[in-house]
Amino acid sequence: MTRLAQPQAQQQVAPPPLDPPVRLLMGPGPSNPDPRVLAAMTANPVGHLDPYFVELMDQAMAALRRVFRTENHHTLPVSGTGSAALETIMLNLLESGDEALVAVLGYFGQRLAELARRAGARVRTIEVPAGEIVDPAAVDRALGQLPAKLVAFVHVETTTGACQPIAELAAVARRHNALVALDCVTSLGGMPIEIDAWGIDAAGSCTQKCLGAPPGLGPLTVGPRAMAAVRARKQKPATWYLDLSLLFQYWGEQRGTRTRAFHHTAPVAAIYGIHEALRLLLTEGLEARWSRHQAAHEALARGLDGLGLSLFTPPAHRCPTINVISVPPGLDEARVRNRLLEAGIEMGGGLGTLVGRVWRVGVMGYNAELATVERFLGALDQALRAEGWRA
Amino acid sequence: MTRLAQPQAQQQVAPPPLDPPVRLLMGPGPSNPDPRVLAAMTANPVGHLDPYFVELMDQAMAALRRVFRTENHHTLPVSGTGSAALETIMLNLLESGDEALVAVLGYFGQRLAELARRAGARVRTIEVPAGEIVDPAAVDRALGQLPAKLVAFVHVETTTGACQPIAELAAVARRHNALVALDCVTSLGGMPIEIDAWGIDAAGSCTQKCLGAPPGLGPLTVGPRAMAAVRARKQKPATWYLDLSLLFQYWGEQRGTRTRAFHHTAPVAAIYGIHEALRLLLTEGLEARWSRHQAAHEALARGLDGLGLSLFTPPAHRCPTINVISVPPGLDEARVRNRLLEAGIEMGGGLGTLVGRVWRVGVMGYNAELATVERFLGALDQALRAEGWRA
Repeated sequence: MTRLAQPQAQQQVAPPPLDPPVRLLMGPGPSNPDPRVLAAMTANPVGHLDPYFVELMDQAMAALRRVFRTENHHTLPVSGTGSAALETIMLNLLESGDEALVAVLGYFGQRLAELARRAGARVRTIEVPAGEIVDPAAVDRALGQLPAKLVAFVHVETTTGACQPIAELAAVARRHNALVALDCVTSLGGMPIEIDAWGIDAAGSCTQKCLGAPPGLGPLTVGPRAMAAVRARKQKPATWYLDLSLLFQYWGEQRGTRTRAFHHTAPVAAIYGIHEALRLLLTEGLEARWSRHQAAHEALARGLDGLGLSLFTPPAHRCPTINVISVPPGLDEARVRNRLLEAGIEMGGGLGTLVGRVWRVGVMGYNAELATVERFLGALDQALRAEGWRA
Repeated sequence: MTRLAQPQAQQQVAPPPLDPPVRLLMGPGPSNPDPRVLAAMTANPVGHLDPYFVELMDQAMAALRRVFRTENHHTLPVSGTGSAALETIMLNLLESGDEALVAVLGYFGQRLAELARRAGARVRTIEVPAGEIVDPAAVDRALGQLPAKLVAFVHVETTTGACQPIAELAAVARRHNALVALDCVTSLGGMPIEIDAWGIDAAGSCTQKCLGAPPGLGPLTVGPRAMAAVRARKQKPATWYLDLSLLFQYWGEQRGTRTRAFHHTAPVAAIYGIHEALRLLLTEGLEARWSRHQAAHEALARGLDGLGLSLFTPPAHRCPTINVISVPPGLDEARVRNRLLEAGIEMGGGLGTLVGRVWRVGVMGYNAELATVERFLGALDQALRAEGWRA
């Protein structure tokens, strides 16, 4: 059998062509982006100072404000993932020697505390057992003992599925004159968030969960009290890349500004993506999307109940976006996840103290659909049966 | 004429659909990505811990090593733009009180110095007039007077087009026992770079120039001497998002590691993009791509000469990737750029001290082709004629 000669040397150095498997992404994120968002990322590339792109930046900022439910001018997608948006908050709002208080429900609360420490703050934490939430009275006591410049909360703790009543917590923090920072990575776009009505000074999120875009940008909003704190800094932030003052020289310090100072080259394709994701979201309607997530979550919860599985998170703290399921005793949870992966479905395992004890199932963005939930439940049923498990 | 009823309220809040103009991007970057790279970004999305994705990360790291010409294990695309790669170097290699020396040829040298200052270093600069490069003897003298932990150079200063003999400069710095950091944003993939042979300890670049991908990732390589300095830090870096120790818990601290600790959710679509861009580059051949850039640059230089225009950068310091053209006296340079933009072609204006005095024309990546250069020259000729200018 003859074969055509191949350029052997080149074959040795170039990686093989991309050939990813088809996956239904039902873990804690990324979830599957809307295919229209991926298509948008291939639209005609323009420069980051092109008049068309400047217009698009304004549109994306305005759309993000609607999704955050805020009038904050300082609202933009940071050129990094959700973690970068949260780091932007901490490195700009805090500086060496500042006091910060962080409510810790799990891994992502610990991460907020670590980000604040890296910013040079003295950080106190309020920690609760996995699945629980922080009592506003505990925040009140902690701030009564020692005031803090900033108090940080995670809206939905992705490791435990616990969702906090942010309006109440923020009100306590503001009574003590603290800035309120919010991690809404696993809630933005999938359930009610009211940045202004709740009195949040800074919030960061991601694109790959309820917004239905790929990971890569960090939606961020910063209110006037927080921007005043940024302007009153004694020292520049350690970060130049995520320096809010510099970012808004490019994104526009005032609405309607047409001249933009170069800072870094914006990730144009990713911003096309979030623009399309926000357009799809606002065309669907924000409340309609929240309802769609709620309906998908309820269908999943009913189905899990039918399979004899129960949610780890106490009913009072559950949210629609991330469903944390207790692994039944005697089951090898990793084998179940592997069986699902072989069937083309990714679900998440536990993180931190919950490794081996829970599965994490995201019903988010494009995947928050009844048909998708049904497919997932069917495959999970099969995987459980294959492992010989009966409720 | 009857029209179908439209959901009026929703139309008010959703931004209009994306509709970017077709542009030939001949500025200092972004340049047009290869359409195959954009297509790759829409491939089946997988999770950031998917076994397929872990394999892809290894392939991308290996391919990046080949493009940087290094054996450095610690080579990866940072989840931010080129600026983030450079910030990663400074925030990890430097800490409070360290001495740093930065050679400044223009805006991007100043940026390196600012990044080093933000990292807490005491920064000295060696500054040269626009278009000039730094004399290795000046670096030798400066380090003789006071040693530095790190010396930073820009390979190609994008504002002036000046390209430095990095091997010589790095040798001087290493004789003084300093770490050598390199900004190769406007050179990687388009002209010879030899990270190991030149003795570079850390280098950062971008995706949107000679690699032919959209902006969004920051290729980075860090050598063993630099990683030893990172491990010897007295304090953690202020950045968690760009902390090298944490990044490599996810990307793999050793070659062949299959278990990856979650850090941040990798920008999967962007990594598909750089994987395809690197595959295309290594299939073409690195030296072949350098030659293609050189040929396109020479064609452009000949064409500019034919139009009566001259390059700002002294011949001895010119490079193929960015062509900085002196604006002839009496011409309104912004009007010429606007005419080109109306014809669908973006070229860059001056930055910093060269505003109004130069144009910047990138011949990079997918655009480093003779036919593209010819189209550009034809359009520039027309724009100059329309402005009534004759050589």
